[in-house]
Amino acid sequence: MNTYTAPVRDIRFVMHELAGLDEVSRLPGYEESTPDLVDAILEEAGKFSAEVLAPLNGAGDRQGCRWVDGEVATPQGFKQAYRAFGSNGWNGIRCPQQFGGQGMPRLVAAAVTEMLNSANMGFALCPLLSAGAIDALLLSGSQQLKQLYLPRMVSGEWTGTMNLTEPQAGSDLALVRARAEPMSDGTYKIFGQKIFITYGEHDMADNIVHLVLARLPDAPAGVRGISMFVVPKYSVRADGSLGGRNDVRCVSIEHKLGIHASPTATLAFGDRGGAIAHLVGEPNRGLEYMFIMMNDARFVVGVQGLAVAERAYQQALAYARDRVQGRGPNGSAAPVTIIHHPDVRRMLLLMKSQIEAMRALAYTVAAAHDRASHHPEGWERERNQAFVEMMIPVVKGWCTENSIEIASLGIQVHGGTGYIEETGVAQHLRDARITTIYEGTTGIQANDLIGRKIARDGGAALKALVEAINPTAAELSSRDGEQFIALREGLRAGVLALETATGYVVANFGKDPRRVLAGSVPFLKLLGIVAGGWQLARAALTAGRRLREGAGDAAYYGARIVTARFFAEHVLSLAPGLAYAVVNGGTSVEALAEEQF
Amino acid sequence: MNTYTAPVRDIRFVMHELAGLDEVSRLPGYEESTPDLVDAILEEAGKFSAEVLAPLNGAGDRQGCRWVDGEVATPQGFKQAYRAFGSNGWNGIRCPQQFGGQGMPRLVAAAVTEMLNSANMGFALCPLLSAGAIDALLLSGSQQLKQLYLPRMVSGEWTGTMNLTEPQAGSDLALVRARAEPMSDGTYKIFGQKIFITYGEHDMADNIVHLVLARLPDAPAGVRGISMFVVPKYSVRADGSLGGRNDVRCVSIEHKLGIHASPTATLAFGDRGGAIAHLVGEPNRGLEYMFIMMNDARFVVGVQGLAVAERAYQQALAYARDRVQGRGPNGSAAPVTIIHHPDVRRMLLLMKSQIEAMRALAYTVAAAHDRASHHPEGWERERNQAFVEMMIPVVKGWCTENSIEIASLGIQVHGGTGYIEETGVAQHLRDARITTIYEGTTGIQANDLIGRKIARDGGAALKALVEAINPTAAELSSRDGEQFIALREGLRAGVLALETATGYVVANFGKDPRRVLAGSVPFLKLLGIVAGGWQLARAALTAGRRLREGAGDAAYYGARIVTARFFAEHVLSLAPGLAYAVVNGGTSVEALAEEQF
Repeated sequence: MNTYTAPVRDIRFVMHELAGLDEVSRLPGYEESTPDLVDAILEEAGKFSAEVLAPLNGAGDRQGCRWVDGEVATPQGFKQAYRAFGSNGWNGIRCPQQFGGQGMPRLVAAAVTEMLNSANMGFALCPLLSAGAIDALLLSGSQQLKQLYLPRMVSGEWTGTMNLTEPQAGSDLALVRARAEPMSDGTYKIFGQKIFITYGEHDMADNIVHLVLARLPDAPAGVRGISMFVVPKYSVRADGSLGGRNDVRCVSIEHKLGIHASPTATLAFGDRGGAIAHLVGEPNRGLEYMFIMMNDARFVVGVQGLAVAERAYQQALAYARDRVQGRGPNGSAAPVTIIHHPDVRRMLLLMKSQIEAMRALAYTVAAAHDRASHHPEGWERERNQAFVEMMIPVVKGWCTENSIEIASLGIQVHGGTGYIEETGVAQHLRDARITTIYEGTTGIQANDLIGRKIARDGGAALKALVEAINPTAAELSSRDGEQFIALREGLRAGVLALETATGYVVANFGKDPRRVLAGSVPFLKLLGIVAGGWQLARAALTAGRRLREGAGDAAYYGARIVTARFFAEHVLSLAPGLAYAVVNGGTSVEALAEEQF
Repeated sequence: MNTYTAPVRDIRFVMHELAGLDEVSRLPGYEESTPDLVDAILEEAGKFSAEVLAPLNGAGDRQGCRWVDGEVATPQGFKQAYRAFGSNGWNGIRCPQQFGGQGMPRLVAAAVTEMLNSANMGFALCPLLSAGAIDALLLSGSQQLKQLYLPRMVSGEWTGTMNLTEPQAGSDLALVRARAEPMSDGTYKIFGQKIFITYGEHDMADNIVHLVLARLPDAPAGVRGISMFVVPKYSVRADGSLGGRNDVRCVSIEHKLGIHASPTATLAFGDRGGAIAHLVGEPNRGLEYMFIMMNDARFVVGVQGLAVAERAYQQALAYARDRVQGRGPNGSAAPVTIIHHPDVRRMLLLMKSQIEAMRALAYTVAAAHDRASHHPEGWERERNQAFVEMMIPVVKGWCTENSIEIASLGIQVHGGTGYIEETGVAQHLRDARITTIYEGTTGIQANDLIGRKIARDGGAALKALVEAINPTAAELSSRDGEQFIALREGLRAGVLALETATGYVVANFGKDPRRVLAGSVPFLKLLGIVAGGWQLARAALTAGRRLREGAGDAAYYGARIVTARFFAEHVLSLAPGLAYAVVNGGTSVEALAEEQF
């Protein structure tokens, strides 16, 4: 029962009814993304994910990667799947057509990313990292670097990596020690060790393009002395053909809790005289480039959280519909399938409603990102950019934290069977567990949110969000029925809590940042559930309209209203408690001396 | 850094200041448990756990068990450790002295159980199951069975198992199919298959005593037709010596997410003519016996949750004190250890404060259990019994759900390093993940709580709990300082939420049980955090008294007040939201048709 079916209906509903696909596909530069083409893309991506990638997920987990003498063999079938992935054009879905990409909006790419990651997160990590490297080159690479590298990276023939972490430099990149020596021919030689490099070595592509953070001689200390370099596994000749092996070696790969199919490499640069490298952009601006690019990687990891949660839900639902155990509490004599038990239904709805909220929020942010980059009006670009920047740490932090809870619920629905590895549902928890860590932990996201996105502009972006929510709350008031009353109550209490917490943050961050940062993760979760609850309320209003019009699938629209209500009652209801922790909970966090822990 | 130090100071504080060890050790029958003896036991159990069991934990996880031809080899060192465990007398800590046990109160046994499970949960599961089998025989075995089996089971020479689950019968034991045929000599032959049998086969003891649920011919259908049998792996002669191999075979062991060191066996009974068995107690009362015994097993699994959480906390704390990364938000120039970052402190306090709350609650319940069984006054026995019965599903459900969150936080504090298996911290999450499932899932606990412990007596036991909390709230009001004001606010809001939710449950369970059961898990969590918050408030009041008296370690008592406050602000603050879900969230859980999920 561990299969995957792309939730195309849910995805289409969100894209059309909540994220405004019609408007996005009319933005200058996105005109080719017609509704028909987008539909075809969703169908094909769903098919490829379900038929090619999903069947490799469990086997890839069990088999894992093998390191032999510096080479890494990916699990059986991955190489072939990757070739098909590239030749179908999935790798370049949102890359510029100039370099062979499809130039689709981020909104469309988000949907494809979700499907790929639901089907096989270990596999999908490879293109995730490639996309980061492509973005970095697009953003800051010279014309020559772009021409030489991008076509084959966009096609997927070559993959990309991001080499940031060193043993002493994880969240704190100021501590990076890898060094770059300038050569007389304009190239550089890189020396140093990088750890935790996703797909840092593998056998799926002809070349691997490492983007490496390193220090030039006499560079300033700290984060303003870090430059970005391209280090190809095989050197690239001027005609684009591959030359000799560069001096970068995979020393080992990690034995991890999950994402076993994805090799996590330790790379040694320069053990045999120096790894030939090319500077990207200007010296000492590497971290700045990395952070612009990182925004997108963070968003995509948030989508990974959504994706794993969806996969866990599908498997739990299938089991709950199949497993016969216990009588109904109404005293039926015969045993029933467990989906009839109230607590199993509650668990499934906790999964389903949060997945719907995460998808709605993530896709809405993707569409806003499209508007921020492609809208003809400057003020629309700015407005959307502010929203995107505020929400990216939320999509990353909130969706990934949820994914752990949801994957764990997937095990719980299975009972003892869920604890057995062969069932395949434990893998989702093991896989999900990395998402709150890489590309910046939840704490890092929350600090970014509080410091740079809320406090810095005095809460202006947050205020704009609340102003966008208010009309939804007003529309809920105009609807009859206990369902909409429940939604309105939940949303109003949530917004009030969010405003209270924001007021506290804005008023206190300047004078006592530590006490405010102590509540940064509760604040991030609070913003996530209020924004997610808002999107579900919008979905319920739309569904209500469709039901009144008598258009479409009444059962589907009815369910959208129920899940929105469930979310308001079971999830959004925690908003005041989170706000309480933000406003009151900072002093106790700071009160203990180190030895008192 | 993956070592374990028994938290003897915290354990002593809870036993003496909150659980009333002095009073317990004066109860008739417990007079030998003098403070000096208890101290010696805690010291020795802590030493044994830290020095013998803890070092085997990671290696046992990596090595796991091996099944060869029906025999199971436990990881290296387990056999020797088990022998030492038995000969030191740990197995019989709370067993009657008549059968060679130490006859200690449950309160003392709970502390020992915590330490053993913190050190090595995979190992400690073996005596956990033996204790269940010993309890069952003590409760319902004939004199002959007791004399023949108990001395060697209490000494640990033989281990015990509980054989309940079959492929079609998990939570729903009415579906048990294993059958028992009466023989002319008064014995029985058992036929059938049992799955998920913890330590169902292993190499650590001379014999394994299986307690098996099976049906006699012509037994009524359902739960009233299940009897309990003893099926020894090797038959036991009248003089106590071992005879031939019985017809019970280990067909396979499971490949699980965690507790790798603990073999989970599929057992086939009667493939070669029938497994010789002895009836325990009366026919058709097996489930009843099992459920009485189960109460204790559930309590102990709750303590396992506490125990794994403590281990995860110790490892996270050691890492946070050691790992240098990032500057302090106050702008110090040099990098600091991560325990200086507000969000890391928040995570550590979320772990620490919940562990303190769980320990206080679990030990208080254990002491109440001692009073319920040993107090000379009938009304005291009854009062305590009602409290124990209400709180056992809470200790089981709440502590185990928390343990998953806390073990996951332990990984988060480690960042990327936590995701690498060699670090050893991921094991705690994998191990903890079973605790919400076995001995009854959280949903099963919550249904038991709502149906049998709250609704059945019209909320009387809950009302008695609130009446016990009120004096604590009043005492908080009499103390000065913002710390005690914060505690009082949190506790009052929590109690109010609990009363609201209980009122709803009592008023509605009779007419609409499904809608009420839909909120059973939120209710269980609500009761857990309010009862836990109460215990922490009691701890803070005691600590405040000691500080005023100037007695003892001021840093320790100061910390107890801070963690109680943190808990009130960051955990207890969620109580109103949980009550909201209980009261309002039932309709939406029931609203979807199966195909709408």
